[in-house]
Amino acid sequence: MKLLIIGAAGMIGRKVVESLLTNPLHGQETLVLADMVEPTGFSASDHTVLESHAVNIATPGALHGLVAERPDAILHLAAIVSGEAETDFEKGYAVNFDGTRDLLEAIRAQENYCPRFVFASSIAVFGAPFPETIPDEFHTTPLTSYGTQKAMTELLVADYTRRGFIDGVGIRLPTICIRPGKANLAASSFFSNILREPLAGKEAVLPVSKDVRHWHASPQSAVGFFRHALSMDLSVIGPRRNLTMPGLSATVGEQIEALRRAAGDSAVALIREEPDERIRTIVSGWATNFDAKRAESLGFVADASFDEIIAKHMEAEGL
Amino acid sequence: MKLLIIGAAGMIGRKVVESLLTNPLHGQETLVLADMVEPTGFSASDHTVLESHAVNIATPGALHGLVAERPDAILHLAAIVSGEAETDFEKGYAVNFDGTRDLLEAIRAQENYCPRFVFASSIAVFGAPFPETIPDEFHTTPLTSYGTQKAMTELLVADYTRRGFIDGVGIRLPTICIRPGKANLAASSFFSNILREPLAGKEAVLPVSKDVRHWHASPQSAVGFFRHALSMDLSVIGPRRNLTMPGLSATVGEQIEALRRAAGDSAVALIREEPDERIRTIVSGWATNFDAKRAESLGFVADASFDEIIAKHMEAEGL
Repeated sequence: MKLLIIGAAGMIGRKVVESLLTNPLHGQETLVLADMVEPTGFSASDHTVLESHAVNIATPGALHGLVAERPDAILHLAAIVSGEAETDFEKGYAVNFDGTRDLLEAIRAQENYCPRFVFASSIAVFGAPFPETIPDEFHTTPLTSYGTQKAMTELLVADYTRRGFIDGVGIRLPTICIRPGKANLAASSFFSNILREPLAGKEAVLPVSKDVRHWHASPQSAVGFFRHALSMDLSVIGPRRNLTMPGLSATVGEQIEALRRAAGDSAVALIREEPDERIRTIVSGWATNFDAKRAESLGFVADASFDEIIAKHMEAEGL
Repeated sequence: MKLLIIGAAGMIGRKVVESLLTNPLHGQETLVLADMVEPTGFSASDHTVLESHAVNIATPGALHGLVAERPDAILHLAAIVSGEAETDFEKGYAVNFDGTRDLLEAIRAQENYCPRFVFASSIAVFGAPFPETIPDEFHTTPLTSYGTQKAMTELLVADYTRRGFIDGVGIRLPTICIRPGKANLAASSFFSNILREPLAGKEAVLPVSKDVRHWHASPQSAVGFFRHALSMDLSVIGPRRNLTMPGLSATVGEQIEALRRAAGDSAVALIREEPDERIRTIVSGWATNFDAKRAESLGFVADASFDEIIAKHMEAEGL
């Protein structure tokens, strides 16, 4: 089995590739990796052939050559992030929507070909106001261009599947926490910063109050979602192909108490409260809790607690 | 005020234009009509200047000239129908999605311009299974390419509005009943045929059982929806710009009893029951009843009964 992974140099992409190299899927033979920059730095594997390509999905036709090799499964993770899609309207549509559509059209152009197609979507397809718990049947009324592009692509994934061009599934990721690496300027970054930085002995800023509730998944859970989506039996799923992933609904206060259990009062003391009205307003439009029944019944598994999320992070980062 | 009406030669388009010529909107000065064939045959009006253009919206740039004249409001009704979008995958996306996106891009290209933009969407954005009554917050999981194209365009209408390029609203039409003109091959056409044909003394075929329930609006109500959407105050609507229109939920049996009240047993006797498994299956995936709270609270008004729908048809057709 040949897998094409687009966006393989990103944070989640790298973790998926590392996981597949360590613990291959049934029948896995070749991983073809693509990203804006050639994805490199993976350990060799005895059982899996690895290929890497530098490809810009916003260039029409860029992926046609890789698709013409008819991979059995395609994992599409490539996107520009929410903040950039909001700042650069045209680039957001070109990459996040037109790039994906061009990829789907390349697949459709192949005769007698219907690969598994796993699309990384996001809870950004939803927009406030929300009920206390968001059901699987809740409408997608995004409040960002990024969310709009993800929701439009979800519709294509369902229609191309219904038409028999792909065997598609859209994976709506929760906010990923704890993101490794450096703090960034995304409005959501504090959810990771307030854990990652103190765990590394550094200060972090908390711009919202401790009762703010949000929907989280660890990078390790996200890898599990994509592994499952690549290999699961989709014959029972029906035409509704876009799934809100299970996650962990927690308040900032609950995150902080888990940090205290893992690293003590001295770690918690590194969090500096510095209310930021702009961030408070943005975050107030975000979803706080889902009832992800369908995905759970299809075998997708969330993190059980923030203690577990912190333990996974410490293990992955060698802390 | 200048209004641009795209799709003005279609069944609903003609009725909207006739209504605006008879009963102009506040400040209405010019109607610019566009369609694949030049819309003609309208009565002259003392108060409204009328222009007509033949334009194919699937040709990129085709509408840019008309948009450059900066109409105050744009009513976009042009589309290929569900059946054709299902048969011709590429044409469906080219007309129903790319054509509309090109129009929105032409608007965005204008500086300091934010016209009222009214988009004709459809309950085809929804797909079974449904709850008994479909709420405004129900997700859009279309089961046709036509419904997919409408749902994708709805997302653009909301995002272009949020960005300040248009002041948009999407109008999800119920099935239009009684459609004037000839019987056609659409799976839904029997809902109109079983009333229109007997009212004209002709036979009609009923391919489903009398307990089939569906969601209807008269052509006259549809005209009312668009008139209201062109002129209403949208300052209170918020970012959720796509509205399920109110309609009349009725069974085929209830339609037939209304026909009996209007035209007697002899009219009803013209309906021949001829079960068609293919049509029964298609119709079983369609929505039967909505709770269109938001649109009702914003002043959109549905037909009160099938007696009223039949009376409006008889008046419009001079029966």
